[in-house]
Amino acid sequence: MTEFQRPRGTRDFGPEEMARRRFVEARLRSTAELFGFGEVMTPTFEDTALFVERSGEGIINEMYAFKDKGKRDIALRPELTAPVMRFYVNELQNRPKPVKAFYFGSVFRYERPQSGRYREFFQFGAELIGAPSMESDAEVIALALWSLESIGLKDTAVRIGNLDILKGLLGNIGITGEDQAACRRMIDKADFEGLAKHLDGLGVDRLKQRNLMDIIKTKGGKEAIAEARQLAGADIPGMDYLEGMLDKLAVYGFEKCNVDFAVARGLDYYTGMVFEIDSPCLGAEKQICGGGAYQLAELFGGETVNSTGYAFGFDRLMLALDNSGAQIPEPGLKAYIVPMGEAARMKALEILRMLRTANIPSDMDLMGRNISKALAYANSARAEKAIIIGEKELAEGSVTVRDMQSGEQTKYPMSDVLRGFLKGIF
Amino acid sequence: MTEFQRPRGTRDFGPEEMARRRFVEARLRSTAELFGFGEVMTPTFEDTALFVERSGEGIINEMYAFKDKGKRDIALRPELTAPVMRFYVNELQNRPKPVKAFYFGSVFRYERPQSGRYREFFQFGAELIGAPSMESDAEVIALALWSLESIGLKDTAVRIGNLDILKGLLGNIGITGEDQAACRRMIDKADFEGLAKHLDGLGVDRLKQRNLMDIIKTKGGKEAIAEARQLAGADIPGMDYLEGMLDKLAVYGFEKCNVDFAVARGLDYYTGMVFEIDSPCLGAEKQICGGGAYQLAELFGGETVNSTGYAFGFDRLMLALDNSGAQIPEPGLKAYIVPMGEAARMKALEILRMLRTANIPSDMDLMGRNISKALAYANSARAEKAIIIGEKELAEGSVTVRDMQSGEQTKYPMSDVLRGFLKGIF
Repeated sequence: MTEFQRPRGTRDFGPEEMARRRFVEARLRSTAELFGFGEVMTPTFEDTALFVERSGEGIINEMYAFKDKGKRDIALRPELTAPVMRFYVNELQNRPKPVKAFYFGSVFRYERPQSGRYREFFQFGAELIGAPSMESDAEVIALALWSLESIGLKDTAVRIGNLDILKGLLGNIGITGEDQAACRRMIDKADFEGLAKHLDGLGVDRLKQRNLMDIIKTKGGKEAIAEARQLAGADIPGMDYLEGMLDKLAVYGFEKCNVDFAVARGLDYYTGMVFEIDSPCLGAEKQICGGGAYQLAELFGGETVNSTGYAFGFDRLMLALDNSGAQIPEPGLKAYIVPMGEAARMKALEILRMLRTANIPSDMDLMGRNISKALAYANSARAEKAIIIGEKELAEGSVTVRDMQSGEQTKYPMSDVLRGFLKGIF
Repeated sequence: MTEFQRPRGTRDFGPEEMARRRFVEARLRSTAELFGFGEVMTPTFEDTALFVERSGEGIINEMYAFKDKGKRDIALRPELTAPVMRFYVNELQNRPKPVKAFYFGSVFRYERPQSGRYREFFQFGAELIGAPSMESDAEVIALALWSLESIGLKDTAVRIGNLDILKGLLGNIGITGEDQAACRRMIDKADFEGLAKHLDGLGVDRLKQRNLMDIIKTKGGKEAIAEARQLAGADIPGMDYLEGMLDKLAVYGFEKCNVDFAVARGLDYYTGMVFEIDSPCLGAEKQICGGGAYQLAELFGGETVNSTGYAFGFDRLMLALDNSGAQIPEPGLKAYIVPMGEAARMKALEILRMLRTANIPSDMDLMGRNISKALAYANSARAEKAIIIGEKELAEGSVTVRDMQSGEQTKYPMSDVLRGFLKGIF
């Protein structure tokens, strides 16, 4: 007799919300398949060590990590790239390259619940494993952008960076090794104040710092690359690559891609191209996608292999779609049958069977309600038509078809019901 | 550099298997929607107490139960009826009745892994909440059977029982209360030896025992009900009900439903009708579905409400489909483009974009492979056609289209590629 609540930071999804989410999921899935990607699925939990290997010891505090009854350390997955690459190393390594895989599933973070951040949330991602980098990178970014178009999310903006450029710029002012990694993490978090302090501490002079900041903050299309080149003076490795990427993406049909040298991603296994996609309608927390080129298989005991991948924050996508007023078709019944009396009930069941056999979503009153209550239910179930079978109709062999939008009612022979729906006469 | 393995008793699913699973899932979903059911989703973990309230203390030993960092007892869900009813009590109780909900998700059991039994497995289920029992029961069984037809699983057999009958039969020989519950659990497990011993212990004479066994073991269509009536001598409450169910199911189009008085289900919250569905092609472990009428909302602090529901063992369904040789469409690419040289590559990208824009699943060689290796890859990706763009083709503005089944190759103007696919000429 206790009333239970769902665990803190988690959600329940009702039918209307689920229909919206499944619609978006289905579009993302079919777009990935359109690009020749195949879906994979891994367990909900893994060895804790797998995630530590990818993300470092710090991840333990952010995970649902526990010991199972066999005293093994397991954790609810906080992300899906590590499990997918673990699966790749275990079983997919010998497939013809490239392996193109996508996934959709929930992930878990033990963090203070706050607006828009949940302890169980959803990611949809893709990994392209084993192809040369330029081709992979372009194909993967194109898939991400195509996917967003397919779900009707407009005004998204991709920012493409390149770690080679960041490394080159930092190397040019004498910053290498762990210092360089620390700087990259600060750049990733847009912590430019912290960066300045760190560079001061390393004795980098202010002019060089100013020049670095100017380059890092340069954003835009090809003109931004030209500008950055001019600011840098010297040739920075990776600039040509970015330029080539923009050309390739234009052939894919994405001509408005921007470069952003400050995209650094947090983790060390990224190797070159990195990118993020924003949906400005989300305000301050606008990022909906992050990804890049990486090498992770070797960390899990596999052969070294170039990979490029990304993950969408699925819940962010849903929020962006809500905010941008994108149209998602609302599911509903085509027909709701309202029989009056027991004899009409059996007739209603026959009609119901016929409609469902023709794949017409339909239902009938199971409660023996009066007409006005039954119509109210039909309305709440978003039925297009109500099929009313009263005593008079039953005697005549007819039905009254009510348009639930207009309220208009018309009588038809009972034998015309199926034809009425199939031919669009109703 | 460690090689990680997936946790014991769990599975990874590769692209081919996932395509099959998603196909079946989509069919089950659209059939539920055809019947006016809406999908709901609840968190992967819940308060441990929720599952104990439904299933008793014993369930703790079978669950992944642990304390989160806030010292709360949580458990990975071992089933989905309790979470869905918890959600119903929290948020759906005030909706117009009936509430028709379905769900699909993974559930977890900590048990010794063995053939065909996994620690993470999948259930697809439906609950109809708040309608009179006869109508609900028929609608729900019809949905289960319709769902199995929709996925192409033939030769399934439904066995419908009624706890009122079991209670009546046991009551008639003086067995009530906890003794009755114990007997029902033994009948549920088909432990007739244990039952005989228990009845002996209670001093039930052998003739009455024999009569009880004879009735319980009676199975079949309406004739079985008549036979059981005769064996019982007296009128047993619930027989008329079962007879009415068979009539209703016949109107739904399911004329071969059987009664089985031994179906008892294990749990105490079942109230009347109970049913199980078998797929004989699975051999000894043939049950693929179990369900019945129940009252559970009140246990979770909600108002008393009649419900009827069931769950499919989704992995069992997949196995049954495999065993029965049911056809599931295999996904594959329509086109795989093989460019020879850098200039052909850019042209290939243009064609690829065009095909994908027309929603034709297609891919291209990203590896710069020679023709025979590229065709081998096209083959492994189950591509229908390869579109070859060599130097000669590029100069002519043509492509060579290779049928991957027959190996036949034909030249077409490059401008005809899209039309070729759309009009089915290729």
